[in-house]
Amino acid sequence: MSADPRLSINQATIKHADLATALRVTADAGVQAIGLWREPVNEVGLDTAARMLADSGLRVTTHCRGGFFTLSDGPERRAALDDNRRAIEETATLAAAGADGSTSILVLVAGGLPAGSRDLAGARARVRDAIGELAPDAAAAGVTLAIEPLHPMYVTDRAVVSTLGQALDIAADFDPAVVGAAVDTFHIFWDPDVLTQIARAGREGRIATYQVCDWKTPLPADVLLGRHYPGDGVIDFASLTGAVEAAGYTGDIEVEIFNADIWASDPADVVRRTATTFGEAVSPHLAVALDSA
Amino acid sequence: MSADPRLSINQATIKHADLATALRVTADAGVQAIGLWREPVNEVGLDTAARMLADSGLRVTTHCRGGFFTLSDGPERRAALDDNRRAIEETATLAAAGADGSTSILVLVAGGLPAGSRDLAGARARVRDAIGELAPDAAAAGVTLAIEPLHPMYVTDRAVVSTLGQALDIAADFDPAVVGAAVDTFHIFWDPDVLTQIARAGREGRIATYQVCDWKTPLPADVLLGRHYPGDGVIDFASLTGAVEAAGYTGDIEVEIFNADIWASDPADVVRRTATTFGEAVSPHLAVALDSA
Repeated sequence: MSADPRLSINQATIKHADLATALRVTADAGVQAIGLWREPVNEVGLDTAARMLADSGLRVTTHCRGGFFTLSDGPERRAALDDNRRAIEETATLAAAGADGSTSILVLVAGGLPAGSRDLAGARARVRDAIGELAPDAAAAGVTLAIEPLHPMYVTDRAVVSTLGQALDIAADFDPAVVGAAVDTFHIFWDPDVLTQIARAGREGRIATYQVCDWKTPLPADVLLGRHYPGDGVIDFASLTGAVEAAGYTGDIEVEIFNADIWASDPADVVRRTATTFGEAVSPHLAVALDSA
Repeated sequence: MSADPRLSINQATIKHADLATALRVTADAGVQAIGLWREPVNEVGLDTAARMLADSGLRVTTHCRGGFFTLSDGPERRAALDDNRRAIEETATLAAAGADGSTSILVLVAGGLPAGSRDLAGARARVRDAIGELAPDAAAAGVTLAIEPLHPMYVTDRAVVSTLGQALDIAADFDPAVVGAAVDTFHIFWDPDVLTQIARAGREGRIATYQVCDWKTPLPADVLLGRHYPGDGVIDFASLTGAVEAAGYTGDIEVEIFNADIWASDPADVVRRTATTFGEAVSPHLAVALDSA
């Protein structure tokens, strides 16, 4: 079978697969790229993971995830920053091991309000400060930090960065090669300003990664898991994908789905279905086919 | 007991109380104002409701709710607009019957995506068009239409108006006496731009009503019902209330809570607890006490 050459399977879509399984089912489905997560990588160890990735022939598109930047100064914040430095090194190692066209991108989820705090503005300032501390490490490693705005329903418990515009405002102080943004349809499709901000992201050279999955209601009891295959919900992939293309993005496109039913399914089936739905809902809106040698 | 003179109980907070009960428990708690909903008003009939309101001695602050503007042209859309015209008349009648200081404000909830549609931009344009159709009726009746941005988690099924800035953009074409915005902490606290937009709303004369309730996680299985007494969650009522005050708003402040546990409680208890929590979480941030004669 032939999947879209720009499709990348974010490993969270097959959350319960170990790294070996994730690489195998992705390659077996004719998909050329994968986005990795730290936990399954560290389960086998970074060096082993890098060898497995190289053997798979897949490109790696992102490493997920760093962040958790909202804590106040103290040992916990320093530990979080140190952990992000390890994640930067992992990202660089994996990108070097992946097939040609791999990208060295660490996705950052900012973190929510610290326990007992109501100070969103303060938490947001600390995100900016943390990225400032990590930017030199990322630059030295050749890694791009991708600030991911999360849907505002996660603002207090997961990510105080809620819009693409806000992510770009934070990124603006840094070299675009070092700090960009993750553009994920699920998180930003609702924003009345989304097309303007996608265009701005392109103009400012900040689209580090484009991720797709769908939204539909009612949301599940755990709203973290309300993501769906492209086309199964109400997101307009034509306008968003068209805007990302028009903004100059020519890279791989990840499908990242958090969904309990999908996680309970056979990962090979999930990857095949992801490739099919991507081909139907996203591929028709891509003007640029990836030159993947 | 003495409740804050600017507190108004939105009837949705005691959803299962009929109009007579709602008026009685509100007045009995020493609260001076109430925000009404169409269903309990129409259950007794408008004229009877107006007499009951007059007898209660309470101010009325808003009438909830109009809207449902996202349908395409056709009989359903025309029926919705006609129903909004009835809501405008109800609003004027009730405001005339309420105690001095009552305000003639109809809260508008825009509506979600029509079935089968993915066209958020189109739905948003139809909201603007519908308000344009209703504005002359509202002006003639002396009613202010308050566009209520709802939290983005409701964007596809309840309200395609998701930010205060978007509501103000829609309102901008109209006389501020006729079209304003509802500023509800639950719906907009997450917005990185919220303080700027509250200041803008004040500058443009558009703060039709200020409503408060709290947010906390995890959200309940039905995310519609995730609202809490002020102070029970993580919203910073100091900064938001301060911004609304600084923007020049001197009117009543409604507490509107959708919460299954609160709805299952005795309404007299709920109103008393609302007054207490409002006094603790919101009143300290009010510079202006209402001159309520």
